[in-house]
Amino acid sequence: MISLPFENTVYRLNPTKIVCLGRNYVEHAREMGSDVPKSPVIFLKPPSSLLPPDSRIILPPESSEVHHEVELAVIIGKTGTHIRKEEAMQYVLGYTVFLDITARDLQKEAKKKGLPWTLSKGFDTFAPIGPRIISADELDPHALEIGLKVNGEVRQRSSTSMMIFGIGEIIAYVSSIMTLQEGDIIATGTPSGVGPIEDGDRIEAWIEGIGVLKEDVVST
Amino acid sequence: MISLPFENTVYRLNPTKIVCLGRNYVEHAREMGSDVPKSPVIFLKPPSSLLPPDSRIILPPESSEVHHEVELAVIIGKTGTHIRKEEAMQYVLGYTVFLDITARDLQKEAKKKGLPWTLSKGFDTFAPIGPRIISADELDPHALEIGLKVNGEVRQRSSTSMMIFGIGEIIAYVSSIMTLQEGDIIATGTPSGVGPIEDGDRIEAWIEGIGVLKEDVVST
Repeated sequence: MISLPFENTVYRLNPTKIVCLGRNYVEHAREMGSDVPKSPVIFLKPPSSLLPPDSRIILPPESSEVHHEVELAVIIGKTGTHIRKEEAMQYVLGYTVFLDITARDLQKEAKKKGLPWTLSKGFDTFAPIGPRIISADELDPHALEIGLKVNGEVRQRSSTSMMIFGIGEIIAYVSSIMTLQEGDIIATGTPSGVGPIEDGDRIEAWIEGIGVLKEDVVST
Repeated sequence: MISLPFENTVYRLNPTKIVCLGRNYVEHAREMGSDVPKSPVIFLKPPSSLLPPDSRIILPPESSEVHHEVELAVIIGKTGTHIRKEEAMQYVLGYTVFLDITARDLQKEAKKKGLPWTLSKGFDTFAPIGPRIISADELDPHALEIGLKVNGEVRQRSSTSMMIFGIGEIIAYVSSIMTLQEGDIIATGTPSGVGPIEDGDRIEAWIEGIGVLKEDVVST
């Protein structure tokens, strides 16, 4: 369970699930050699992978190629199923910065063999989140600069306006499959520029109007 | 949140994750045309897919081939990470019957395209569980008959002695990747005999010493 500042209170993140989108920015789909999807590609990360701000991402010995992926995360504010796109934004509590840390070598092997992505996405510390939740009514989530630096150097920089599926569509799609519960997290996909992180790296991920999520990288 | 009878009390299932094993019985790996794995194949189902006993499995319109898979489920009793195989059984609260309902057509398509299994495994009602939890000290989980009937006809029948990876190995493996938390569920894979379920079917899944999990099947 992770606490993040939310306006003047502290919001306790205790999600029943973390739903992530793959391939939701055209340039990222292209850099991965993937087709641009006709419907959202979704996968789950376990809540045990959540990491608070100013902590340490641990590189697992099973992988020799762990990548950063900065994403806008949506925090669900009330339970809903088969939510209509037009009403979807009423189900959003707020937004924060999320890192979908990925063992790229394990993911490539899984894709080749037709195996689940869970191993490559699910290690402890592979879901950094924060530094705060911004209330849904305080920003336009589809017009924000989003980016990531490694050791001060910009590696990812884009705009949430480049998402293929917008937040209303994503909420409608996910809730047509699985009931969304209060506190659930939806990570909306990463722009291009993903790449490896190494022992000793300092990550700064930012989204305009939300803030900077800072993490250190260590090997086990 | 689901309540199941547990000895003389009621146990409230409120897991932070449901970890499932694929290909943990040789005959099932063969019937799927899959290799027998060298390490456990794991994937996640969302807690929103849990279904209490004596309820209705809903066939989603997205799939035209939904399969039954009966499994022994382990309920985790205390939090642990990097648990040693020799100490793993101390982390087990108890056992119950689990159905890993699977949209086989969507899973086949995902495997072919290297996409996540989440969609095919994650629909609401796709994780029936129950009818009760049997305490870990009351049975030998590696010597139980396990089976499933559709409309009174036996479709799956095997023994948990046929599992490739035993429960100690599974807990050690999973906890080396993701911290296991009290209440988490691990489904240990299905034996051969999986097949389609249809609108109006009556499912009875049983495990020796635990009981019979009964569900009806309906289309949306």
